[in-house]
Amino acid sequence: MTEPVVPAARKTYLQGSRPDIRVPMREVPLTNGDVVVLYDTSGPYTDPDQKTDVRRGLPPLRARWIAERGDTEEYDGRPVRPEDDGYRGRRSGAEGNGADGNGAPREAFPPRRPRRATGGAVTQRAYAQRGEITPEMEFVALREGVTPEFVREELAAGRAVLPANVNHPEIEPMIIGRNFLVKVNANIGNSAVASSIEDEVEKMTWATRWGADTIMDLSTGKDIHTTREWILRNSPVPVGTVPLYQAVEKVGGNPADLTYEIFRDTVIEQAEQGVDYMTVHAGVLLRYVPLTARRKTGIVSRGGSIMAAWCLAHHKENFLYTNFRELCEIFAAYDITWSLGDGLRPGSIADANDEAQFAELRTQGELTKIAAEYGNQVMNEGPGHVPMHKIKENVDKQQEWCDGAPFYTLGPLTTDIAPGYDHITSAIGAAMIAHHGTAMLCYVTPKEHLGLPDRDDVKAGVIAYKIAAHAADLAKGHPGAQAWDDALSDARFDFRWEDQFNLSLDPDTARAYHDETLPAAPAKTAHFCSMCGPHFCSMKITRDVRRFAEERGLAEEEALAEGMREKAEEFRAGGGRVYLPIAPGGTG
Amino acid sequence: MTEPVVPAARKTYLQGSRPDIRVPMREVPLTNGDVVVLYDTSGPYTDPDQKTDVRRGLPPLRARWIAERGDTEEYDGRPVRPEDDGYRGRRSGAEGNGADGNGAPREAFPPRRPRRATGGAVTQRAYAQRGEITPEMEFVALREGVTPEFVREELAAGRAVLPANVNHPEIEPMIIGRNFLVKVNANIGNSAVASSIEDEVEKMTWATRWGADTIMDLSTGKDIHTTREWILRNSPVPVGTVPLYQAVEKVGGNPADLTYEIFRDTVIEQAEQGVDYMTVHAGVLLRYVPLTARRKTGIVSRGGSIMAAWCLAHHKENFLYTNFRELCEIFAAYDITWSLGDGLRPGSIADANDEAQFAELRTQGELTKIAAEYGNQVMNEGPGHVPMHKIKENVDKQQEWCDGAPFYTLGPLTTDIAPGYDHITSAIGAAMIAHHGTAMLCYVTPKEHLGLPDRDDVKAGVIAYKIAAHAADLAKGHPGAQAWDDALSDARFDFRWEDQFNLSLDPDTARAYHDETLPAAPAKTAHFCSMCGPHFCSMKITRDVRRFAEERGLAEEEALAEGMREKAEEFRAGGGRVYLPIAPGGTG
Repeated sequence: MTEPVVPAARKTYLQGSRPDIRVPMREVPLTNGDVVVLYDTSGPYTDPDQKTDVRRGLPPLRARWIAERGDTEEYDGRPVRPEDDGYRGRRSGAEGNGADGNGAPREAFPPRRPRRATGGAVTQRAYAQRGEITPEMEFVALREGVTPEFVREELAAGRAVLPANVNHPEIEPMIIGRNFLVKVNANIGNSAVASSIEDEVEKMTWATRWGADTIMDLSTGKDIHTTREWILRNSPVPVGTVPLYQAVEKVGGNPADLTYEIFRDTVIEQAEQGVDYMTVHAGVLLRYVPLTARRKTGIVSRGGSIMAAWCLAHHKENFLYTNFRELCEIFAAYDITWSLGDGLRPGSIADANDEAQFAELRTQGELTKIAAEYGNQVMNEGPGHVPMHKIKENVDKQQEWCDGAPFYTLGPLTTDIAPGYDHITSAIGAAMIAHHGTAMLCYVTPKEHLGLPDRDDVKAGVIAYKIAAHAADLAKGHPGAQAWDDALSDARFDFRWEDQFNLSLDPDTARAYHDETLPAAPAKTAHFCSMCGPHFCSMKITRDVRRFAEERGLAEEEALAEGMREKAEEFRAGGGRVYLPIAPGGTG
Repeated sequence: MTEPVVPAARKTYLQGSRPDIRVPMREVPLTNGDVVVLYDTSGPYTDPDQKTDVRRGLPPLRARWIAERGDTEEYDGRPVRPEDDGYRGRRSGAEGNGADGNGAPREAFPPRRPRRATGGAVTQRAYAQRGEITPEMEFVALREGVTPEFVREELAAGRAVLPANVNHPEIEPMIIGRNFLVKVNANIGNSAVASSIEDEVEKMTWATRWGADTIMDLSTGKDIHTTREWILRNSPVPVGTVPLYQAVEKVGGNPADLTYEIFRDTVIEQAEQGVDYMTVHAGVLLRYVPLTARRKTGIVSRGGSIMAAWCLAHHKENFLYTNFRELCEIFAAYDITWSLGDGLRPGSIADANDEAQFAELRTQGELTKIAAEYGNQVMNEGPGHVPMHKIKENVDKQQEWCDGAPFYTLGPLTTDIAPGYDHITSAIGAAMIAHHGTAMLCYVTPKEHLGLPDRDDVKAGVIAYKIAAHAADLAKGHPGAQAWDDALSDARFDFRWEDQFNLSLDPDTARAYHDETLPAAPAKTAHFCSMCGPHFCSMKITRDVRRFAEERGLAEEEALAEGMREKAEEFRAGGGRVYLPIAPGGTG
């Protein structure tokens, strides 16, 4: 995994105001001498100068920054218990997925002492509100090409989050907010079959290699704590979880047996490990559950249905809602970012934008304001399945009701009739919702609704979502996004094939497709494409037009049109012929 | 190719007012006893009761309708010449693609006598303007679920086209217009390598099998005339071409050697064969060519660059523009539909919506009005490469300047950074532009810009575009589109796996993905999905909520909330437990 994504590319670093602020970027040297510098999520794994070893974890980039602030301390963490990994209290017959296949615990990462706040909030938002620009803020400012002060303002206002648990010093800081590049999250989960630690870690590095800005570890079952530890220690991107999944495992899988105490204990367990953001379905209120009764597809969120089942079983208000303020205190002590879950999101086109969904969103707004009192960083999760004409309303309401907090949506899918292609049905919705202001997109793979994604599915999902995110960046007028497109367009026009491949989201696939039609090496430098062949080429004709215009330096249309006449004579006189060879492709 | 797309589906026919109006549909029987009837483009090939034989062609469904009108007559058509198939006047060294690989002509389809008008226009538009409802109009009315009178009005107003050359009686009529289902075109071309007639025809049937509403034959090189004849005689969908491609072949590949006479002769050649619509780049005016000089990617349309080269070489106005009225007369005599080409469409994000593009669109508007004088049916072609925020302007201007004529766009791609994935970059733009009013979408395959699409690419392109078209139909509020989604959503909620597969755009892929995770046959009837497993399921909890609500017939929230309390007691009393098993997937 140390080979670069783009063989021709180099890892480069933008140097900050102090030696230990070094922001990784991907530098793509072009054959015309230009260099394009791109945002890079792939971490130290693609830097040939860094040796990585999953058994030692990544270097703790932020450790000094955290320590220097002097507002946290190490302490003896919560002891890891067998049930954290699913080895006690399991129902009989449950399948383990331990590394040896027999349920034996997976090898643990060497123990560490966690940190937490000694006093007030140690969140990036709290620092921003106090006017402090942290190294993390400067890091993301360099990464995004904006000023540190702008980053600080956005964080202070709650319009952006910088997920960075004090116990996850390994991350390369990144920011999520509508005024920054649109981000992409990839979900990963542990394998049902035995797999090595290297394999588990590799799922994360595979997703970040193709551009995932964060990952969510949605593992369940055995070894969940230990696997998460390995992932966190090796992840250069923020890691999110849904603590409810682990909590419900600890009570043998029955939502009715859940208690707030078990949930809180799970949050602390994961906080000490370094989880950067947590999905919490605190907005699924008892009175909203009946609103789903007449829906076409009811409740489709797993977390939402767990809490609905709990409310049903006890006829009590959601314990995540009733204990929200205490959770805010915990989140403030580790700098965990809220990802307020949308447990009542629509599960079909028919249910989009209904009363249940928007009732929960209103409560997300209420909770967002409460979390702000504690200096917490907050995102709001959003749908799901939404037809195109109802997408904008989701962003508008979320932005209004949640005070401009970053919106984090799953797709949305714009139709339900294409199982097997939901990375596409949802990339359409994702691009649109991001254009309207969603800050981060949770990817959907081709296996959505059908099965568990494999390596190819993860890549397909990430690429589809990088397309959606980038299309939105372009539509929002991001200058860096436009420059990237321009560089590729220029390479295309100049028939610099290698540059086209190296600038593309997936150089391997672009190159492979080109090779199928024109496999020979010289074709990579040929001044034509497979569509029109070597003798006739529309781009060639354009170059004639352009060269003429440039040589003459004529700015006015009329003058150019005049020039055309001369050009026509020159063309005929020179006997210059253009040929249209065989080969179909493209329209007209 | 006679096996159905959906093994469980049946070919069914909607019966019109006369015995020979029978509209094919796909009837999907569901396991719950419901039947869903879907639009079907796959032609007689998927009807087990019809025997098809490519060497005899499809039955001439419309032959009687055309003859009955008494306004056309058979005549001795233009003799087929060797150069029509590229066997004379070719430059030396040109590669043939004859069936034997040595340039020997391909076997011809048995000769037929063509028809043409004896007097005035024989177009569906002209009939509509006279108040006549043709069998073709009734056919599409049944197919679309609207009244024949509505079809007539839309055709008369020029807001829709029904491409149906009098020499292509084999088609199952279809309509293209913003007030009908969004349509998808697939481009096919002949192979550079020798292939059988069956193989050439199969490219068309493969595309229509997955949902292509029309195909464009963009073949070049040898056997172009003969291959087109085989395709037309076997195509149940309208066939479009770009006659300029063949015309330039006839002059040895040099645009400068083109003449209007050669072009007109090619149009008549193709008109007699039955081509239903033709892309003609009549809007590429001499004075617009210099406007492309400062573009990032100049002229990228092949037809546009041929005409620009011709204008450059002669410094004369585009002969397609100067002879437009005579072409209108020819089009009226065969009912060929105009697809006014956009030769100056943008080839990169940077060039979108520029002066060159909109100058040509204004000329398309002028030509659209002229064609209307002749009773011609007209579509306007559109881009191309357009960032999301500039998409709507394209439709708005086209609709305004071209009097509401159907817009027919290629994508548009919403970013240029993902070669290898342009079916996705463009499905985003296609869905959006169709939502805003584009009537037909020309597909883009994953090989766009890189190479020639193979069978898998064609399928990937068609499916991506069916998604885009359907997402737009939903967003436009089409009741039939919503019903299709609802049927699939219901099947998903009820865990009717076979119904989900059978209702999907690609049942094979959906089934295969499901099999990867849950291969056993019982899993197809299992009341759970691979994401949450058999014991815990969010949809199951919802069903509990819903069943309770329905049993009690309680309409009000309060009553339902009251019911929740009873439900909670029942739940605890019955010891009914819900289990959350291992298995990741999906967010929260």
